Amino acid sequence: MDSHGIAWGWIKTSPHNVKCSKEGYPEENIKRERIDLKEVIVKAPATIANFGPGFDVFSLALEEPYDIVKVRLNDKNSINVKIVGMDEGIPISVENNTAGLAATHFFEETNLSKGVDVEIRKRMISCAGLGTSGASAVACVYGLNILFGANLGHNEIIEIASRGEIASGGVAHADNVAGCLLGGFVLIKNYRPIDVVKIEVPNVPIVICIIKKAKRTTRGSIPDRISLNKVREQISYSSSLIHAILSGNLKDIGEAVNRDNISEPVRSRFIPRYDDIKKKVLEAGAYGCNVSGGGSSIFAICEEDKTGEIAEIMKNICSQGGVENKVIITKASNTGVEEINGL
Amino acid sequence: MDSHGIAWGWIKTSPHNVKCSKEGYPEENIKRERIDLKEVIVKAPATIANFGPGFDVFSLALEEPYDIVKVRLNDKNSINVKIVGMDEGIPISVENNTAGLAATHFFEETNLSKGVDVEIRKRMISCAGLGTSGASAVACVYGLNILFGANLGHNEIIEIASRGEIASGGVAHADNVAGCLLGGFVLIKNYRPIDVVKIEVPNVPIVICIIKKAKRTTRGSIPDRISLNKVREQISYSSSLIHAILSGNLKDIGEAVNRDNISEPVRSRFIPRYDDIKKKVLEAGAYGCNVSGGGSSIFAICEEDKTGEIAEIMKNICSQGGVENKVIITKASNTGVEEINGL
Repeated sequence: MDSHGIAWGWIKTSPHNVKCSKEGYPEENIKRERIDLKEVIVKAPATIANFGPGFDVFSLALEEPYDIVKVRLNDKNSINVKIVGMDEGIPISVENNTAGLAATHFFEETNLSKGVDVEIRKRMISCAGLGTSGASAVACVYGLNILFGANLGHNEIIEIASRGEIASGGVAHADNVAGCLLGGFVLIKNYRPIDVVKIEVPNVPIVICIIKKAKRTTRGSIPDRISLNKVREQISYSSSLIHAILSGNLKDIGEAVNRDNISEPVRSRFIPRYDDIKKKVLEAGAYGCNVSGGGSSIFAICEEDKTGEIAEIMKNICSQGGVENKVIITKASNTGVEEINGL
Repeated sequence: MDSHGIAWGWIKTSPHNVKCSKEGYPEENIKRERIDLKEVIVKAPATIANFGPGFDVFSLALEEPYDIVKVRLNDKNSINVKIVGMDEGIPISVENNTAGLAATHFFEETNLSKGVDVEIRKRMISCAGLGTSGASAVACVYGLNILFGANLGHNEIIEIASRGEIASGGVAHADNVAGCLLGGFVLIKNYRPIDVVKIEVPNVPIVICIIKKAKRTTRGSIPDRISLNKVREQISYSSSLIHAILSGNLKDIGEAVNRDNISEPVRSRFIPRYDDIKKKVLEAGAYGCNVSGGGSSIFAICEEDKTGEIAEIMKNICSQGGVENKVIITKASNTGVEEINGL
């Protein structure tokens, strides 16, 4: 890690064609590091995608909430997905589940014979803009990478897992996936080929008001063309955020995430009481407030001693409006997916 | 200056209404620091606006070329503009000259009685995308600020000088003006009110092929709407540039300035042999190449020991194509406008 807190460089991978057994990872080199390994259990954090102005480009990993994914070898040469916990509405067919689809791509790209049971312990509400679908995908690929000793690099894992995201939003977006894998703040430098930079973050207290969205994805509601004036503002906003994070100034980070011309104006319309919540938390001293990922969750950044007050405001406004919600106080995390010892 | 090389904070000013004599700068406080002062001479560097992906938001100050502006009190209560040197085509009427218009705004905002002769020693070709019109405007306001002891802050000088830019491009853009004033790399965080951040730059060798553009401004040719896909790429590109500059890695800086979806695709079409120049300098090892500001100049970033070779390539391709040009080897400068002792 250098003096700017930049922990990861970036590795170029071939676009959409990792083919680990052919390019750089000869098949004979694919060996399990722990040969008696039967299962791997992975903890995968929630992420705030976009993180204000970084539409499809930025994301931030959180300490809480998180999911747990267990991948276990089977002798049936098939991928089986099982969900435990908050499983409502999540498909478990391999092609419609992000983890299942990502696992399929993993086996295709590595030329390994598939045979795995994927158990997803869902602790995060789905369809709330917490990156839970991406978390399942990337945790699954991360676990498979260990289980099969495939030696995939970070960008390769992101590449495969982001294609798993097609099962959820219809588009292979890498922001949640990259943030979840690496932790900290992640900037997608390039999509084809995937180039990702992780920036270590300072202590960023975050209050998140978790609200499930009414429709599965709001991506289609975002206009497909943006005015030049708004684009030039967006360049300012997103650049200011990078500058703020690298400077480590909480107030600047908050002010930079508070502005967005692309996602927020559209997605906030689908969130009941959004304008009121944003107004009130800023009045109470939060530095910034915005929609988390595709919504409907709302996050605010503030000093640590303000988190309780901000949380109460969010809860109260939601309750008054009859909006089902769960408010949690969390913080940015520099830890991404990690192997753990048990469920 | 902190450990990230960030030298300036930002100061909020009232939007388009500095009114120094009313807001924060009571008229009685406006006093000349050097009471016998009759004239001020200012050196104003060229700037590369946009600097790749930062349309209207980024600029970089250069060591060479530069202009010199002398402001001298007169007793006629009028603003007079005179140009010495490369004066071709530059209007000298107060309302059509960027320095003259900026001086007018200066006197309006400060409520001081106008009476100044502005002499611009033009060493930079105008209409070449070097920010020379902005340099004149900001040098003039900077000089007036000293001459009249008006105590304007940086953002206020930028605000006033950027309105001088209307005389040139028809739009009050602050990128060249801010880069010229502060030196280094400048990011406009916000336009209304103006919020500017200067980032100190490492040693960035630059070869610039100065080509005058056929039309006064190419701004109107840029589409007024940008596709969402291109915007999301632009967020990546501009964010990557901030990250690269703060990391101080020359190769990353070059690669980040090499990409742009807004200005380059349009303005490069007005530059004869542009594609050939870009291709050849990159093949020769330059890290990045792009259009300087509104064009037609082309800049390349490379290691110091490559500058001679890159300069030769640019010269040769222009000569073969009969394109009038001047190639200079320069570098990024952390010094903006500065008072000097003589012309």
